[in-house]
Amino acid sequence: MREHGQGGRVLARGSFLEVRRDDVRLPDGASATREYVVHPGAVMIVPLLDDGRLVLERQFRYPVARVLLEFPAGKIDAGEATLACAQRELLEETGYRAREWACAGVLHNAPAYSTEGIEIWFARGLSAGDRRLDDGEFIELCLLTEGELERRAAAGELSDMKTLMGLMWLQKWRAGLWPLQWVGADRASTG
Amino acid sequence: MREHGQGGRVLARGSFLEVRRDDVRLPDGASATREYVVHPGAVMIVPLLDDGRLVLERQFRYPVARVLLEFPAGKIDAGEATLACAQRELLEETGYRAREWACAGVLHNAPAYSTEGIEIWFARGLSAGDRRLDDGEFIELCLLTEGELERRAAAGELSDMKTLMGLMWLQKWRAGLWPLQWVGADRASTG
Repeated sequence: MREHGQGGRVLARGSFLEVRRDDVRLPDGASATREYVVHPGAVMIVPLLDDGRLVLERQFRYPVARVLLEFPAGKIDAGEATLACAQRELLEETGYRAREWACAGVLHNAPAYSTEGIEIWFARGLSAGDRRLDDGEFIELCLLTEGELERRAAAGELSDMKTLMGLMWLQKWRAGLWPLQWVGADRASTG
Repeated sequence: MREHGQGGRVLARGSFLEVRRDDVRLPDGASATREYVVHPGAVMIVPLLDDGRLVLERQFRYPVARVLLEFPAGKIDAGEATLACAQRELLEETGYRAREWACAGVLHNAPAYSTEGIEIWFARGLSAGDRRLDDGEFIELCLLTEGELERRAAAGELSDMKTLMGLMWLQKWRAGLWPLQWVGADRASTG
């Protein structure tokens, strides 16, 4: 069932996106080409405030031409540990630091044409600080209760798949079905 | 918060992927570029057998270099209605036809760099037939109960985000929380 790469080339290298085209050998011996985005991987954080609210963001997403409500997320820098990335993105985009972290898992969001995996982290014991947005980032913070987010999801107002997934995962954890392993932020950032 | 496109160009046009780079005007008047995959949109089908099992597929996904367990899905053809696409993909990839269909919603799976939206359809009243795989498609059918799929999800063995999302949506519907509007396949294919 496996496809074996037989070499390939960069189809496009933009400032943000790299696209490759590889020749592959199919399981029956035939040849085919596969085109895909080379992505460094990303993290998403589900930040849980002590008062029960969740930290979300509203952000215009040019490719889909609309403002989406999303959990904080960002691309992994070269050589960066995923938790270090999660801590950095949470701080930069929201200003929050977290005392405890738990890795839920990695999900593939576009496996037909992107190498991206999104590692989902939960964060609790939050303390607010100043955020440090990159130039050209326009992100509005949005603190919502879990009930309010569920209401929006049920109403079809939550179209970002990773965010809807984060809410579902949170509900599974609250229900005791999908346990999380929490670690301290200090231990975490060295691991 | 909106970003306004100021023209752009095709960065790469492969056999499968088209990538664009647009110049945009940011909310503060500054300029930036946005690179993204132009995608026709996709559908995913959650096929419910009368005996309680679900129809899934195992397929090697070259970009992530592994076999993933997924609900049937595929790209929308030019001018194709989304339900017609769902019916076609289900038939081609699994051989099943469905008596009733329900559209759950559209989710954005990579809004930072792809225009893709995945429309999620539920299908029931299934009858088996012959499938019609495209050349170069190697897809293994996998009939699983909802409990078995949930067990795999809880064990972290289900890394395809849309499929995990489909399972969660199914559970919400079964729990009476997220209702579905079912329509007959005949009415559906004309609408």
